[in-house]
Amino acid sequence: MQVRTSVTMTSATPTGVLRSDGAVTATGPETSADGTRATPLRVALLGCGVVGSEVARLLTQQAVDLQARVGRPLELVGIAVRRGNRPRPGIDPALFTTDAEALAARPDVDLVIEVIGGIEPARSLILTALGHGASVVTANKALLAEDGATLFAAAARAEADLYFEAAVAGAIPIIRPLRESLVGDEITSVIGIVNGTTNFILDKMDTDGAGFGDTLTEAQELGYAEADPTADVEGFDAAAKAAILASLAFHSRVTAADVYREGITEVSSSDIASAKAIGCVVKLLAICQLSDAADDADRTVSVRVHPAMIPRSHPLAGVGGAYNAVFVESRSAGRLMFYGPGAGGSPTASAVLGDLVTVARNRVRGAVGPGESSYAARAIASIGHVTTRYHLSLEVADVAGVLATIAHVFAQHDVSIQTVRQNGRGEDAQLVIVTHRATDAALSATVASLRELDTVRDVTSVMRVEGE
Amino acid sequence: MQVRTSVTMTSATPTGVLRSDGAVTATGPETSADGTRATPLRVALLGCGVVGSEVARLLTQQAVDLQARVGRPLELVGIAVRRGNRPRPGIDPALFTTDAEALAARPDVDLVIEVIGGIEPARSLILTALGHGASVVTANKALLAEDGATLFAAAARAEADLYFEAAVAGAIPIIRPLRESLVGDEITSVIGIVNGTTNFILDKMDTDGAGFGDTLTEAQELGYAEADPTADVEGFDAAAKAAILASLAFHSRVTAADVYREGITEVSSSDIASAKAIGCVVKLLAICQLSDAADDADRTVSVRVHPAMIPRSHPLAGVGGAYNAVFVESRSAGRLMFYGPGAGGSPTASAVLGDLVTVARNRVRGAVGPGESSYAARAIASIGHVTTRYHLSLEVADVAGVLATIAHVFAQHDVSIQTVRQNGRGEDAQLVIVTHRATDAALSATVASLRELDTVRDVTSVMRVEGE
Repeated sequence: MQVRTSVTMTSATPTGVLRSDGAVTATGPETSADGTRATPLRVALLGCGVVGSEVARLLTQQAVDLQARVGRPLELVGIAVRRGNRPRPGIDPALFTTDAEALAARPDVDLVIEVIGGIEPARSLILTALGHGASVVTANKALLAEDGATLFAAAARAEADLYFEAAVAGAIPIIRPLRESLVGDEITSVIGIVNGTTNFILDKMDTDGAGFGDTLTEAQELGYAEADPTADVEGFDAAAKAAILASLAFHSRVTAADVYREGITEVSSSDIASAKAIGCVVKLLAICQLSDAADDADRTVSVRVHPAMIPRSHPLAGVGGAYNAVFVESRSAGRLMFYGPGAGGSPTASAVLGDLVTVARNRVRGAVGPGESSYAARAIASIGHVTTRYHLSLEVADVAGVLATIAHVFAQHDVSIQTVRQNGRGEDAQLVIVTHRATDAALSATVASLRELDTVRDVTSVMRVEGE
Repeated sequence: MQVRTSVTMTSATPTGVLRSDGAVTATGPETSADGTRATPLRVALLGCGVVGSEVARLLTQQAVDLQARVGRPLELVGIAVRRGNRPRPGIDPALFTTDAEALAARPDVDLVIEVIGGIEPARSLILTALGHGASVVTANKALLAEDGATLFAAAARAEADLYFEAAVAGAIPIIRPLRESLVGDEITSVIGIVNGTTNFILDKMDTDGAGFGDTLTEAQELGYAEADPTADVEGFDAAAKAAILASLAFHSRVTAADVYREGITEVSSSDIASAKAIGCVVKLLAICQLSDAADDADRTVSVRVHPAMIPRSHPLAGVGGAYNAVFVESRSAGRLMFYGPGAGGSPTASAVLGDLVTVARNRVRGAVGPGESSYAARAIASIGHVTTRYHLSLEVADVAGVLATIAHVFAQHDVSIQTVRQNGRGEDAQLVIVTHRATDAALSATVASLRELDTVRDVTSVMRVEGE
């Protein structure tokens, strides 16, 4: 039930209250949907970019529904912005303040939404808010991946909530399923397409056969990639999300620094064509895995972000455009997949508001939701110990015995070859090799040895093959 | 972290405590994982079939992890069974009791799991447990769909939790996402494949070209269908789940009686072939929709379960075998899909244990999770008012003007034809017609009029086309 009448927001003063009919009244008991009088919960919004402005708008448009779902009205009392004089359609300018610290520290604020992003000032503001007893909803993947433990500790001290569904995969519910739905199960693997920009680019390269550079330019023109695309195309964004997913899945602290990371800038149109030739598609994957071990205490966690070939029959292979999906395997539940839009103002705002209603309900009941769960304290495996399959393309001299020489190098390093395809072309030949599972260390040593052979002109590409 | 050592369960007496090392001690403060002393939460299990016995086993095997995640040990104190003398491997027979009512009423029990199924005695037992202040986790879709309001009211009175993730789509987290993740959004449509048996049968019919009867027999032999398959193949099971999904999505009370229901027993191999011919696949869908209306107060909810053709490009079309999936559309989040195993002992037990940890955490904090949200109180639209597209097969006399006559009947009832295909075969012809969107009432009236025409020998099939 949306408010159909035009409503305006209240001023940024602590005494303004948004009524469902859009009128502004003095602070005090309000008549709620069920006829009882209820004091509003006060909400401060830090940041008013694409996500923040959508959150502000929805808080007004959906005020009647949100009040019914929470049990008390939600009152937006202020919005921290960098420049207060920029016009933002549909949002009362009186709500804006450039003093974010003062807004986060307001003692009358119950709930703080942080959608500024980045490490500072976001961290200080969240700690200020928690220190004043407010519950916090944040979409800040970078901060959670760098220093989540500090935030969780502050929330626990304050007996306040810290919710962050919007930090990973936009509107797709994945944090709550990992933190709550699957908390009675043993998760063994989480594999996600969690960056829409790179998925858009790789999907376009697959469809059009174009190279990375041209496709990036197109993505920038269409608004799918930023002017400085580093965070996306180098995998930093996905790595932060991988750290968050791994922490939740394995009840261990995993930070961005623990994540092995390769971006997609080196992916060529010939890699995409090679993937096609073996029935695969190239995706940038965030992979979080729990190792096998005879003794449970020896099981380690590996977390990595890199482009990989996956079979076209894999559920993740069909995730096109800027969509995201997360594939979860657990001991009892089996294989689950969560799919949806991974970014954008509206989807991210949906996730923020879902968290806001949850923490507001908790506040109404004097309760708090789940905090950090890091009891398992699993060790992080280095990339060298991670095993997977590999696809290699080599330029070799087209002479008798070259394949035997190369096969010998693989055998020396204990890397087993699954398939070889040889394409002769004059003096040179191209060899395409797919291996069985091997450690990253063994594969790296194999490639180093191959490069030393006279008959090997070049190792033109090495890419992991995932999703058996 | 699983307990690797062999553990045994405690007896059904109120004084037994399961320690992480498997020893049984007298009730009293226990040393928890973090070294503090913690009193266990006592768990009663009602029912010990496929799901119940898996829950019992996992409570033992995962005792150390569950304790770490809850913050206190979980102690299984009794299991209600119909026949106490049946051997159940891996479960201490001393836990069994045939007096379910006494177990549900035990004042020292904190958490009750109901996996008996059906209306009675499950309802009385849940009400008894809530009446004694216990929180309840149930997988009982039939009971929730028939009388959820009574259960929610009892939970609210007791200030206890009622959780039911396992009631819909097995291990797939869908209840929590609807109840919490998307609670700040406006859900407009939920379309699910929520019955594994019928999906297995329809998928087999699609792959093998076999008829319904033969495929059902095969499904029964493979254990995918029960000896009495009525609840599955007639759509009762899916209708109960649809009622639960619609209640949550639209914040309104929807019972099984509100759900329009058709099973798959009339689906023929020629229907499947017809679907293929138009690029579609036949699925049994549970469809919950919020209507459009100029005034929000006039928007109604329609809930229906029936076989339907959906385009092979639709995300639900690729859901094969006994898998389940739920496709959700909302105003801000857009299109989301949740996919996974929809039934089976382990997946369902995963969902039960996820709920158990959540309600146990709530109990430790003295909190309760979300209760019933039915404030919107939307009216239920009758099937006659529901609009969708239709696929019709007609046997007609192959005479001049027959198409014009038939097209006239459609036009009289305001049903617009999208495509017609005519297959001549001697004296008769087959007409295959796909309509644009029309109300169910208009389509039914059209079919009735067609049957009165001399030139129409038979209307051999009518099936809805969904998922535009």
